Order: sequence, then structure tokens, then C-alpha cells
Amino acid sequence: MKALVVLAHPYEKSFNHAIFHTIRATLAERGVEQYWHDLYADGFNPVLTKEELGKKPTDDPLVLRYTKELLASDLLIFVHPNWWGQPPAILKGYIDRVIRPPHAYDFPENASGGGLPIGKLAGKKGLVFNTSNTEESRENGYFGDPLDSTWLRCVFGFCGITESYRKIFRVVADSSEKTRKEWLSEVGAIVSSVVAG
Amino acid sequence: MKALVVLAHPYEKSFNHAIFHTIRATLAERGVEQYWHDLYADGFNPVLTKEELGKKPTDDPLVLRYTKELLASDLLIFVHPNWWGQPPAILKGYIDRVIRPPHAYDFPENASGGGLPIGKLAGKKGLVFNTSNTEESRENGYFGDPLDSTWLRCVFGFCGITESYRKIFRVVADSSEKTRKEWLSEVGAIVSSVVAG
Repeated sequence: MKALVVLAHPYEKSFNHAIFHTIRATLAERGVEQYWHDLYADGFNPVLTKEELGKKPTDDPLVLRYTKELLASDLLIFVHPNWWGQPPAILKGYIDRVIRPPHAYDFPENASGGGLPIGKLAGKKGLVFNTSNTEESRENGYFGDPLDSTWLRCVFGFCGITESYRKIFRVVADSSEKTRKEWLSEVGAIVSSVVAG
Repeated sequence: MKALVVLAHPYEKSFNHAIFHTIRATLAERGVEQYWHDLYADGFNPVLTKEELGKKPTDDPLVLRYTKELLASDLLIFVHPNWWGQPPAILKGYIDRVIRPPHAYDFPENASGGGLPIGKLAGKKGLVFNTSNTEESRENGYFGDPLDSTWLRCVFGFCGITESYRKIFRVVADSSEKTRKEWLSEVGAIVSSVVAG
């Protein structure tokens, strides 16, 4: 088994970074080979170009490497804060530029692009860890938790991934150190369980 | 009345561009003063920096200008394709970097950031035009149309904007020139109606 871990947070002492390090340590303990991308540290450019609108391969070497490592991985793990019910722009651009046709999904020959895609990431597993400063009742009742649909259906489901799981830690801004330690233990337990399972 | 029109699409002959030009022409006809940003043409950098995590003003001159023009506008109009149930990364980054505290929303003094925000864009109106290649039944039934919640509640609602409207044109990939012309007439009619009041 190989895993890919993608982090999107600008502050290196963020709780997102702590989650990322816990995931990486857990994978190492379990003997899982891993690729990992700290998008901010890598200086990733999230803006999809005009040339990348269709199926033509990008000429950005970082995107090419990210793509190769995505395709080589059995377990895809994303770590990011909930900003406006969406990932930070740098991760949105990872989705735009890396999860592209023809390798991540495709359309049948001669299709216009308006029909159903062929999911090319089928068989992989997806796992998302989010941090949030919104109470659960307001997130689900008022905002409707758009990130749930975004990851599990719009991204994973669209590309044929049927086994996926998402965990939200909240409210981070109001959390104690003790709570955050418990949350990190939970991260380790979730990763171990997915790896075992 | 002043209006702001923000476009996010990499291809200058896209239908999104046609919508953008129709909006601008309609505003001009109606005598509405307008600011307009073609984020791709402007070379906007969507990556929020570590320094921009809190309330500190950015030092990016383009973000400063965008912010000033957002605050000076009564009507905020966004035009973008539905990519993964979200805006393109370049527009996600506009939200991250321009719609910031303390000018777009704020928290009460001494608050931790986990409570309810004060919407500082109250009184403005929001309008979103989207293009999509997904059938309505699949968008609403399977994907759950996360863009609806993202714009109307996560962004506009969060910042105190209660009058907002979103229009989706689909399926663009399968549309005829005749249909697209009708859609542009509809764009003009919607903008005129919102401007009138």
C-alpha cells in the first residue's frame, strides 16, 4: 500500500500541520510507503491555465510530479481548514490542476463533455481531515456543510472512489491543549484503521 | 448605485466571458458605475499568506485595490464555471484574500474566533452566474449543488448579505448557439431587474 498526504495551511505551527505530522508518523509506523505534499512549502501555483482546460498534459513539473504520485497511491489523504465551506485556494487549485482528464477521469470518445464521466481513480480510498471554527449545529443547519459533498461526491465520487471518509475537528479556536492531543490520537486511530481495513 | 463584476475563467472566448461582457454592457446601459476584475487577465495571486491569516492588512496592491472596490460597491456580481462544485482556485483565492476581517466581517473584541461573526457587507446585494456541464437532476440529486450554499450562505450570508440570487446555465457543453444567445438575454434581464430593484 502507498499513501499520498496533501496539506494546505499557510502557518507551520497550525493544528493542520500537527494533523499532517501525525498522519505521516502513523503511516511510517504501519510501514506504509508515503508521498507527501505541503502545498504552501512547495510554492504550488493553483491557477489552472488555458492550456490545461482540456486533456493536454501540463508543462508544470510540480503538477506532473503530483499527478504521478496521486496515480501511484492507494490511499489519498487531504488535510485542510474549512475556509468558506471550501478548501484554501491552494488546495482548490490542486484539485483543478492535478485531478484532470484523462488520468483521473475521462469522457467516452466523441462525447461533448456534458455526459457522465468514467472515474479513473476507482479502487483508491479517500480520507479528509478538516479543522473548523463553526459549531456543528450551525455548520449543518445553516451552511449545509458543503465540504462533505465537495469531497465525498464531487471529487472522490466523480473519479470513481467509493470508499471515502471525512473527519472534522471543531471548534479549534476554542479548544484546549488537552482536547487537541485527544484529536491527534483520533487522527492516528483513523489512519491506522483505514490502513488495516 | 455602484456594481462590482468579477470574472474567473482562463479562456477569453469562454461563455463565462460572454456573460461578463453582457453584464458590463447592461450596467453601462442602465447608467450603473462599475468596477470589474478579470482575475486571469489581472494575474491575480489567489494564495492567502501566513501574514493574512488574521486581521492585518495585506501588502499586495492588487488585493488592496480589489478590497477598496468591493467595499465601494452596492451590487457584487461573480461569474464563474462550476469546477468540482466550487469556483476555480483563482476565485476561491479572491474570497480568501479579499473578503477578510475586519472589513468584510469581524468578531467582537476579545472573541476567540469560534463564535458568530458580525457581517460587515450588510446592505449590499449578491449575484452569481455559473456555467455547468452537469444535468440539473444529477447536480441536485447526487452532488447536492454545493455552490448554492457556498455563495448564498457561506459567503454572502456570513458577511451579512441577505439579498442574493444565483443563476446556473447548463449544460453548456451541449448547448446550441441559439440557446446561448437566449441565455445572454436572460443575463441582461436578470441584471436589469436587480438594478431596478
